[in-house]
Amino acid sequence: MAEPPNAAALIIGDEILSGRTKDKNIGFIADTLSDIGIDLAEVRIVGDNEAAIVEAVQALSQAYDFVLTSGGIGPTHDDITADCVAKAFGVPIGVNPEAAEMLLSFWKGRGIEPNESRMRMARTPEGATLIPNSVSMAPGFRIANVFVMAGVPTILQAMMDEVVKMLPAARPVLSETIETHRAEGDVAAPARAVQEAHPKVRIGSYPYHDGERFTTRLVLRSRDADALAVARAAMDQALKSA
Amino acid sequence: MAEPPNAAALIIGDEILSGRTKDKNIGFIADTLSDIGIDLAEVRIVGDNEAAIVEAVQALSQAYDFVLTSGGIGPTHDDITADCVAKAFGVPIGVNPEAAEMLLSFWKGRGIEPNESRMRMARTPEGATLIPNSVSMAPGFRIANVFVMAGVPTILQAMMDEVVKMLPAARPVLSETIETHRAEGDVAAPARAVQEAHPKVRIGSYPYHDGERFTTRLVLRSRDADALAVARAAMDQALKSA
Repeated sequence: MAEPPNAAALIIGDEILSGRTKDKNIGFIADTLSDIGIDLAEVRIVGDNEAAIVEAVQALSQAYDFVLTSGGIGPTHDDITADCVAKAFGVPIGVNPEAAEMLLSFWKGRGIEPNESRMRMARTPEGATLIPNSVSMAPGFRIANVFVMAGVPTILQAMMDEVVKMLPAARPVLSETIETHRAEGDVAAPARAVQEAHPKVRIGSYPYHDGERFTTRLVLRSRDADALAVARAAMDQALKSA
Repeated sequence: MAEPPNAAALIIGDEILSGRTKDKNIGFIADTLSDIGIDLAEVRIVGDNEAAIVEAVQALSQAYDFVLTSGGIGPTHDDITADCVAKAFGVPIGVNPEAAEMLLSFWKGRGIEPNESRMRMARTPEGATLIPNSVSMAPGFRIANVFVMAGVPTILQAMMDEVVKMLPAARPVLSETIETHRAEGDVAAPARAVQEAHPKVRIGSYPYHDGERFTTRLVLRSRDADALAVARAAMDQALKSA
């Protein structure tokens, strides 16, 4: 079985780092990639800062199969993502005729004035293909292995529907969840033993407070259904004897 | 005025990247650092993977004044943060006598068995100082400019109360929020003009859907109260004339 594809997400925006806006996109991107079997391997959040964005785009696009970005593609002075992505790939940026036509026609129907600020949303790096936006029309774009999306969650979610069609479908990760009803310190030894005996399955241990006390959820994950079933049985047995 | 201190957060855990757990720590860390005037400049999320954690700790601790990590310090096989931080700084890891005493005494009072897995939570890199945990006792630790905390939100929040005491207090960032009740494309030109005329103030533009239509919130931020007041007045004026 070939290695499954992996991806990174890059969340762009001062408002997330200042705490003013609580991110809602990471969880959505993570869920969507999990559904189609792509491993989200890393997430970075950076501010509206050219050097930080360019560096992150370059580092992540070299390290991972795909990069998904959110934020910074609107009409205002702090929307610099498209320029930064162009710079990261060393290509010019300009008005994309297809994007301009989509926007002008959409605005015309709504009596919205196509001023210079709004036309910034039609700019893409040279060689980019558009990612449609069914919510407010201003498109995202793909260049090389980088998919550039809006930061507003409803728009990002609409764009992700389109991005999914552009990504390969991989064998999804299957999971088994065990509610142990025991403290993490009591399940640690059996979990470790089963993990060591079943390397094709990844066992995560997640302590949480159930309102009364700390208890532990064990999650077994694998792309191999048979390996997962065998490890699950072994884990159940190990917990019984522990 | 000296440059204010900055920081990065490193969130560690497969469960965040898989989408199974939705992160609650980034927003809390961001809010807390904002309150004490430290700029959160970058966030990274990586999985329970030694190479990824070591690389991120090294990169972030070199690039920023402070690094705050969450996750991976429990008793199970997937809790590898302490080992990775020791490796990142090239120091040995071992049982911290102070941590061991705290834990043994806490467990004794509760009839909890101090097994080998649980004793892993007393291990810290050499030279680390402890971060108390008022929720479940197992401490975090600080080494150099890196503060290592638990991933469970209630515990992280208790540890952050202690970390705040160990960080310098800087001049807080003040902010003014303007609800423009207008589309982002209509406020972009005045916002850009005011930003260019007031470089000591950082102006962010945040479009959102108010249930009926997209509208825009402008946020002006500065550590300089006078500069902020002047920019706010200029922004009000510019919006009136636009």
